[in-house]
Amino acid sequence: MTTCRLYYWPSIQGRGELVRLAFEDTGTRYVDVARKPGGLDKMLKLMREGKSLEPFAPPFLETDGVVFAQTANILAFLGPRLGLVPEDEASRLHVAQLQLTIADIFAEAHDTHHPIASGLYYDDQKREARKRSAAFVRDRLPKFLGYFNRVLDRSGDYLVGAAASYTDLSLFQVVEGLRYAFPKAMAALEPTLPRVVAHHDRIALRPRLARYLASSRRIPFNEDGIFRRYPELDTRP
Amino acid sequence: MTTCRLYYWPSIQGRGELVRLAFEDTGTRYVDVARKPGGLDKMLKLMREGKSLEPFAPPFLETDGVVFAQTANILAFLGPRLGLVPEDEASRLHVAQLQLTIADIFAEAHDTHHPIASGLYYDDQKREARKRSAAFVRDRLPKFLGYFNRVLDRSGDYLVGAAASYTDLSLFQVVEGLRYAFPKAMAALEPTLPRVVAHHDRIALRPRLARYLASSRRIPFNEDGIFRRYPELDTRP
Repeated sequence: MTTCRLYYWPSIQGRGELVRLAFEDTGTRYVDVARKPGGLDKMLKLMREGKSLEPFAPPFLETDGVVFAQTANILAFLGPRLGLVPEDEASRLHVAQLQLTIADIFAEAHDTHHPIASGLYYDDQKREARKRSAAFVRDRLPKFLGYFNRVLDRSGDYLVGAAASYTDLSLFQVVEGLRYAFPKAMAALEPTLPRVVAHHDRIALRPRLARYLASSRRIPFNEDGIFRRYPELDTRP
Repeated sequence: MTTCRLYYWPSIQGRGELVRLAFEDTGTRYVDVARKPGGLDKMLKLMREGKSLEPFAPPFLETDGVVFAQTANILAFLGPRLGLVPEDEASRLHVAQLQLTIADIFAEAHDTHHPIASGLYYDDQKREARKRSAAFVRDRLPKFLGYFNRVLDRSGDYLVGAAASYTDLSLFQVVEGLRYAFPKAMAALEPTLPRVVAHHDRIALRPRLARYLASSRRIPFNEDGIFRRYPELDTRP
């Protein structure tokens, strides 16, 4: 595999962070293109003109002369190459299944602050955002995280198999993001999710990952990303 | 591959239809478990108890002793086995990329009628549904379908490569669903999407698929599925 060039918005963690975590945790050299001088223009140009197949949206990856998009697709490609997925096909299908469920969490977390249209400002859909967030915190958050808690209850230290796969890194990021966006809701919910919390702490201790998280390469959470801290949306479950 | 057992809600097309289309178009024998007597109970039991890894939601597939979920994951597994994907890895990455973009369309189409919570009735979020649908029809529909039109403009008769892949069948279903849910909006938009329309018509002529579409195995669209016809949501782009 030639050096991977990741294309993603330079000022947010967003979905691209799930790819960054896979590179960082494995000490894999990669170029975060849009964070280099002139890189954002390169990214936008590639989105307009494509190569063989234009991506619909970032993140997308360039390696071995191919450009391809969609976070779960990128991670399914990288998993075997970075040693971040078990060898057997059944396990890989399960890792991919969990990753797509995490993609669903990301989409729903985004829509808590943009329930009407991603093209409108938050302030123009604040009323609806309150309603959607309340339902997310009350119904969806316990359902999603309760699911991962049950999976871990059965599987042990990692979601699938005996070592961390890329979806373990992504679940770590889900907890990070939800704690940022919904601190009160998460504080109320976490006592019911001991496996998820222990799993988060286990992943956080991985040496390369810990160094990355403490570095300036880790973009802080902010109100342009998927997980946004709007106190009025952080209700009790 | 042992005979595939598909688990999906028995009364809607929904996401499961994308898997059904792959089986039907290739004349592959499969069991649509929840549509058999007692099958729905079997599906719900498997969701509660799992096997090695419980699915978060239908559809899920059982074959070769493994149960796994998520539509795009199921199709990525079936693609090579049913001859519904090109041989080379770059093409497979592109097919998977397009399939995940179609998954995004499905999620957004669902949220046009359920923008606040999937657990609430449509009538309890009708006001917000009107706003979300207007934005979907105005911004997202042209963006998504314009994207696929550009891809086809470059690729030819099929999205990737020289023959139909599973994502061609899924794009056909997107157009079917959108025409059902948003007939006025689609009538206004389709003249700008000649490639997408020609592609839909090309897929519809595939003999096995055409026989399936005319059969009683094809569940009609209805207001329990992803694509719902609520005339008040069918605005002009």
